[in-house]
Amino acid sequence: SAGWFRRRFLPGEPLPAPRPPGPRASPVLYRRPRFLRGSSSSPGAADASRRPDSRPVRSPARGRKLPWNAGYAEIINAEKSEFNEDQAACGKLCIRRCEFGAEEEWLTLCPEEFLTGHYWALFDGHGGPAAAILAANTLHSCLRRQLEAVVEGLVATQPPMHLNGRCICSSDPQFVEEKGIRAEDLVVGALESAFQECDEVIGRELEASGQVGGCTALVAVSLQGKLYVANAGDSRAILVRRDEIRPLSFEFTPETERQRIQQLAFVYPELLAGEFTRLEFPRRLKGDDLGQKVLFRDHHMSGWSYKRVEKSDLKYPLIHGQGRQARLLGTLAVSRGLGDHQLRVLDTNIQLKPFLLSVPQVTVLDVGQLELQEDDVVVMATDGLWDVLSNEQVAWLVRSFLPGNQEDPYRFLKLAQMLIHSTQGKEDSPTEEGQVSYDDVSVFVIPLHSQGQESNGH
Amino acid sequence: SAGWFRRRFLPGEPLPAPRPPGPRASPVLYRRPRFLRGSSSSPGAADASRRPDSRPVRSPARGRKLPWNAGYAEIINAEKSEFNEDQAACGKLCIRRCEFGAEEEWLTLCPEEFLTGHYWALFDGHGGPAAAILAANTLHSCLRRQLEAVVEGLVATQPPMHLNGRCICSSDPQFVEEKGIRAEDLVVGALESAFQECDEVIGRELEASGQVGGCTALVAVSLQGKLYVANAGDSRAILVRRDEIRPLSFEFTPETERQRIQQLAFVYPELLAGEFTRLEFPRRLKGDDLGQKVLFRDHHMSGWSYKRVEKSDLKYPLIHGQGRQARLLGTLAVSRGLGDHQLRVLDTNIQLKPFLLSVPQVTVLDVGQLELQEDDVVVMATDGLWDVLSNEQVAWLVRSFLPGNQEDPYRFLKLAQMLIHSTQGKEDSPTEEGQVSYDDVSVFVIPLHSQGQESNGH
Repeated sequence: SAGWFRRRFLPGEPLPAPRPPGPRASPVLYRRPRFLRGSSSSPGAADASRRPDSRPVRSPARGRKLPWNAGYAEIINAEKSEFNEDQAACGKLCIRRCEFGAEEEWLTLCPEEFLTGHYWALFDGHGGPAAAILAANTLHSCLRRQLEAVVEGLVATQPPMHLNGRCICSSDPQFVEEKGIRAEDLVVGALESAFQECDEVIGRELEASGQVGGCTALVAVSLQGKLYVANAGDSRAILVRRDEIRPLSFEFTPETERQRIQQLAFVYPELLAGEFTRLEFPRRLKGDDLGQKVLFRDHHMSGWSYKRVEKSDLKYPLIHGQGRQARLLGTLAVSRGLGDHQLRVLDTNIQLKPFLLSVPQVTVLDVGQLELQEDDVVVMATDGLWDVLSNEQVAWLVRSFLPGNQEDPYRFLKLAQMLIHSTQGKEDSPTEEGQVSYDDVSVFVIPLHSQGQESNGH
Repeated sequence: SAGWFRRRFLPGEPLPAPRPPGPRASPVLYRRPRFLRGSSSSPGAADASRRPDSRPVRSPARGRKLPWNAGYAEIINAEKSEFNEDQAACGKLCIRRCEFGAEEEWLTLCPEEFLTGHYWALFDGHGGPAAAILAANTLHSCLRRQLEAVVEGLVATQPPMHLNGRCICSSDPQFVEEKGIRAEDLVVGALESAFQECDEVIGRELEASGQVGGCTALVAVSLQGKLYVANAGDSRAILVRRDEIRPLSFEFTPETERQRIQQLAFVYPELLAGEFTRLEFPRRLKGDDLGQKVLFRDHHMSGWSYKRVEKSDLKYPLIHGQGRQARLLGTLAVSRGLGDHQLRVLDTNIQLKPFLLSVPQVTVLDVGQLELQEDDVVVMATDGLWDVLSNEQVAWLVRSFLPGNQEDPYRFLKLAQMLIHSTQGKEDSPTEEGQVSYDDVSVFVIPLHSQGQESNGH
């Protein structure tokens, strides 16, 4: 509740007691995604001699099939950090049904799986790889737990007002129907809860192991014929079909969430500790702007207006810069994600966490309604790819490659690799001359057409 | 600032001193829009004998031309209230340029007009007609003042960082360009500020005259080739063309703004005074729901989940009901608008105002880019119309009527009347059998094609 928020983030309250000294948890060990074990690397750029910093592109070993025969490829950044701070996870999501015994609190777990889903996830870490690794290890378990908690509702014609089917008043289904609540709303709710639960786990684990960091999270889940894409951060997923490009996620950055962030600073000015100004100006103000009327925006404005500059307007802005340079409190380039519980503005006690949301935005794709074609794919990638390739360029690469390679069982893997290569300034890439991503880049290519084939095979 | 919000709305702070007794302002007098003077009425329903409650449809007198030859019609509600609580206003918006004298604070007003716009507005009152009348009398003046305050920026190629053109650093235009600020962003900002200024005026006037009430506001402003539609409430504007229906506004109700409203109650639980629950449930909970797991949503959720019912969940919900029945704190059907400064939940001290926004959402239509056709119109109407007619039904009526009547100088007036008639259950109306609006209904039909003609004529 808000009381918790105030105790956690607002000054004037006693700090939480330090943890008693005890056995410290072991630190989170760096590693690449499990499904890359035994993989080989291909050279990064076409002309390695021209690019001494050429980095290897990694993909799963050919014998290791990802769900739906999805393709995956990744490349580490150009010596920005020692570790690849991107992480990935994917797998089958086995949701069991809990049956209630005679006493309500007694559960009988039926170990056999009841609903099967599939899961692909990308995490883009910052401030170290630990949060992304924890998220890759944890989020799917949180999601399975959240889905199992509502599985009775998922398989009903519509979610019942009362879970467990006990004490259903005859009028209840009617009320639920009037609100238009569908099984998919429970999956959306489970994804929202799973992200928050995972965020709490990461906070505890990082504190226990004395590590720091945060990460974005982009998750695609297929369940009961629908694809759910949950996003917290600046990764992106798009659907590419023969004659359609559909965004399946939206980026959350200090720029796209300006009003929410300014609003919070308006409500709790203490969070800025007198060091930052909540207002947005077209550029950092200087001493000789004092007294002038300059353009500005506050939390309730989507348009711009003019105000006379006061001394407090000269402080560093809460959100500064634009595009890829936009920063929250001069520190973070994303406004949603997991972790960052301890993150503070350099040399101050000002916390970032109160401005960050762990809750994702979820879009639902009704795959059953799509009249799927062989080459329909979802492309998920971290921002390193989208910084240099537009949706249209990615779609062009997909449409150039897939139709001629329908017999190749490794075509989605090759497509993922090709997408990564295209971020490295290859001459035949569709990017403008010299457009090279120096960031970590990770890509999933998920073929939707396999969904039916795979289900038939089980 | 937030300090103001806390002092104004949160308990525990001393109440503002009562106003000293003095001459009381005279109450706001009820009347219809100015442009209806000298108008006649046509009978409401086709078959007056069948409907004893048949009400007259009012339109401007034929000699009185509204801007762009727009059509207008209205009908009072079916004895829901003594007065028609809808109000309307329209006219030319003359924006003057203020020139600065030698001393910055000395202005020389050049009385000749500098920019000309046009303005159409609908206000749907509740709790009495006073707020809607004040808004109809005031909002255009607030808007003119706000636009005049930024007029130097409006006519520049792009708004300068510093208003008044003084002390412009050579690097400034570059910064403003990088932020992508356009003249239209200043108009959006001026509309946002004008709504807030008007809300303050209404608050003062109602308090001074001892009256109460609030209203929604839907405003269309044409300026420099663009049409700005600003909306706070549940009225609606749509663009109807031969092969396109484009919504120009979105309704703000307790349902559409659920997350914002729940979020405020999360931050300031004091606002609910222990009488309401912030959580949304599919129906009002009852005593025998206690201990059950029921569907719910909180402020951060767009999906649904289950929670075990506690005693506090049995309180009356912050937002209750759905569709047209949805109410904020059991009281209001809209979540944005002007006025309502004194509104409290019946028999309590719980205020509505902190949950209401006066700031509108503004959409911009670049009319110059449209390749206008003779029959392109914007239809603006209060919720009484949209409760019984869909966008598609309104477009069907527009497209059925206009093409055959291009020579009729009163065609937009007749179309507005016909739209009103269609809400009264006429047999040839496109509504389902028996769909009758018993609410006040007001409609503007604004032909976009006249824009060019009128400009040429001046």
